Amino acid sequence: MTDQTKDVPFSFGIDVSNATLEHYDNHIKRHLSEMAGQYQDQEVYDALLTQEDVLLYEVYETQRPEVAGELLNGLSVVHPGKIGDEYFMTKGHFHAVLETAEVYYCLKGEGVMVMETPEGDWVVEEMRPGRVLCVPPRWAHRSVNTSANEDLVFFFVYPGHSGHDYGAIEKTGFRKLVVERDGKPVIIDNPRWHASRG
Amino acid sequence: MTDQTKDVPFSFGIDVSNATLEHYDNHIKRHLSEMAGQYQDQEVYDALLTQEDVLLYEVYETQRPEVAGELLNGLSVVHPGKIGDEYFMTKGHFHAVLETAEVYYCLKGEGVMVMETPEGDWVVEEMRPGRVLCVPPRWAHRSVNTSANEDLVFFFVYPGHSGHDYGAIEKTGFRKLVVERDGKPVIIDNPRWHASRG
Repeated sequence: MTDQTKDVPFSFGIDVSNATLEHYDNHIKRHLSEMAGQYQDQEVYDALLTQEDVLLYEVYETQRPEVAGELLNGLSVVHPGKIGDEYFMTKGHFHAVLETAEVYYCLKGEGVMVMETPEGDWVVEEMRPGRVLCVPPRWAHRSVNTSANEDLVFFFVYPGHSGHDYGAIEKTGFRKLVVERDGKPVIIDNPRWHASRG
Repeated sequence: MTDQTKDVPFSFGIDVSNATLEHYDNHIKRHLSEMAGQYQDQEVYDALLTQEDVLLYEVYETQRPEVAGELLNGLSVVHPGKIGDEYFMTKGHFHAVLETAEVYYCLKGEGVMVMETPEGDWVVEEMRPGRVLCVPPRWAHRSVNTSANEDLVFFFVYPGHSGHDYGAIEKTGFRKLVVERDGKPVIIDNPRWHASRG
């Protein structure tokens, strides 16, 4: 990679124990304040926010042209914690170009991927180190860290032309929530999701 | 993944120590006899072939529709060994749709990826466990196992519409060869590549 004017192959290490990439172009940090309306327990959310704008998750991205044929990739790190009984999670989104897939390789931690289609189908898949998760086109995706004390760390790859559509999710959230009951993660209906479509 | 009629998300483990996937649709095995003309030392190649049609490498694939927006992925396993002083390697190819990328995550072993463009640019990148390799569109790619006794194992992802073009590579090979000199991998010119374009 000596000639920077050419579009040449390049490689970089994933530092799993420190949950970062050896090389990256963007580092996105999502704090509690950026998740307004996403957590069920509004009182706890507001109370926590007056104390500290906690860092919920981070994304390290390698920049590539956002066109078909290219592959965007990077590392997601969801920190452990809860807002009430609801685990720390990513905002989640559809791809703007709905007919685009995503592939994940989980490197560390314990969690789930919550997914749904615009038609209302839903799936929740476990994420464990050493596992690949294939998300076909049309499925919105949100990762949830269900560990009490460990980061959820995974590598992602998606088509360059996918884009992001947060709009639908920001309005009503995902159809399913992942909450802690008796120390274990449980999938429950999101009452707000139903209401919005009622 | 209970309803098989729907195109739903799914996950599977990568068994790194046994170099296989927990779930796969295709298992491709490439033997010495399928690499005719690819190794420099034709005499050694012929002699070895009379003894045993050695298994050089294996690919485990998860089947997905071969269209833009989809992501094809799987596991490559290049076994250790040499034909003369040239290491075991994959056949290598361009993508039929030249403007498509590929992303690798190396899980085990020691090796290199040999890459070149139709214009004659070339790059050789090291592959080590925990490293990501990004191959931009237009670059042919061949993996080479430079370890004396360990498999080279890596996970790959590429766009669904990429296709494969082995033609150009089968005729003249890659521009560069990776051979052992004094116990170490060294990059040398492929004399046959020059001759074919002379």
